[in-house]
Amino acid sequence: MTAKINVTLKKSIMDPQGTAVKDAALSMGFDAVDDVRIGKHIEVKIKDGISRKEAEKQVELLCQKLLANPVMENFSFEITED
Amino acid sequence: MTAKINVTLKKSIMDPQGTAVKDAALSMGFDAVDDVRIGKHIEVKIKDGISRKEAEKQVELLCQKLLANPVMENFSFEITED
Repeated sequence: MTAKINVTLKKSIMDPQGTAVKDAALSMGFDAVDDVRIGKHIEVKIKDGISRKEAEKQVELLCQKLLANPVMENFSFEITED
Repeated sequence: MTAKINVTLKKSIMDPQGTAVKDAALSMGFDAVDDVRIGKHIEVKIKDGISRKEAEKQVELLCQKLLANPVMENFSFEITED
């Protein structure tokens, strides 16, 4: 199994990196772009023999304690079969 | 509409950041973790009035030309209604 995790900045947090990418995109002629927000995409391969329930429990805790800053970031994840 | 883009390192490319997170996770007792790969999650808000077809065309080009390094990275995206 693999956990596919997205960590994104909370709406209220400014994203200078996203603004820089938006400006670059508009200057390159991508006029469909209205706004850009940049976050992290983390893929965690789960060891064989671990149950889906245990994997979900550990990935949830991993996000809370290590991968996402609860003050500034949200996280979401899905666990897929390999 | 919003384009949700994931940019990930190609399998052949080493990921020291992912290795550091894996080591930290294991030292914190997350024994289900086998491997960790870190990438970018980018959300692009599409201007109102743009067709889905035009949005897909621009997002594909945006990934090729600005968001992903074709030598080292793969990208995938989906376009969702807001």
